[in-house]
Amino acid sequence: MTNANRFPNIEDKTEREEGDVFAPAFDAHGLIPAIVTSAATGEVLMFAYMNEDALARSIETGEGVFWSRSRKTLWRKGETSGNTMRILEIRTDCDQDVVWLKVEMAGSGVCCHTGRVSCFYRRVPSGKEAGQKLVRVD
Amino acid sequence: MTNANRFPNIEDKTEREEGDVFAPAFDAHGLIPAIVTSAATGEVLMFAYMNEDALARSIETGEGVFWSRSRKTLWRKGETSGNTMRILEIRTDCDQDVVWLKVEMAGSGVCCHTGRVSCFYRRVPSGKEAGQKLVRVD
Repeated sequence: MTNANRFPNIEDKTEREEGDVFAPAFDAHGLIPAIVTSAATGEVLMFAYMNEDALARSIETGEGVFWSRSRKTLWRKGETSGNTMRILEIRTDCDQDVVWLKVEMAGSGVCCHTGRVSCFYRRVPSGKEAGQKLVRVD
Repeated sequence: MTNANRFPNIEDKTEREEGDVFAPAFDAHGLIPAIVTSAATGEVLMFAYMNEDALARSIETGEGVFWSRSRKTLWRKGETSGNTMRILEIRTDCDQDVVWLKVEMAGSGVCCHTGRVSCFYRRVPSGKEAGQKLVRVD
């Protein structure tokens, strides 16, 4: 686990879980997962990764900035599409190795590169329906 | 990227994104991230990983089963605490490398090992409040 220069490192489990110091834990690739939900509807819009720079910029600017693993570059959401992402709230989890952003999409309100509001536009049948084909919900 | 025996593999990008075949993409460690939200409140409850077995069992049984990276074992949520997780809906994202579960918690309704409903009980101040201490929201 690498840790960012910009953020403190906390080894103590109780302090990580119960403390008030933000000490995000980045993985072996220097990344932390980011869950993005709509502040308005609660729907999960997308899932992406941030490196320390992306996380620091997101916190400072209040706009969603991520790390593109395929392009290996910082990626300010909406810089080409115009669908920028305004962060209304950021949360972290018990062991501080995930962040959750509640956001408001600017522009057309679309978050997914396929042109849909959310990336999660297909349901995976489960339980009694297990094994059936994906169901479109967009 | 490894792919599970139980699930098909789809290389074609359009087919992955627009098709109705569930072909989950596991990472180099054989894992796929799972976002868990409350079906009732929309709140993100936890974030964990599944291997192919955990994902197949979750789909078949309708109960949340994960892969514990620390214990290196399958982990049926609630097997010790009694707070099992009933899956009401599973979704996957555009490139099928994440799953989102909408769930209902049994037992005391608690999801986090710290005894809280959600693992995301601290807010990270951002924008004008950037740099301030974490704020408890539980």
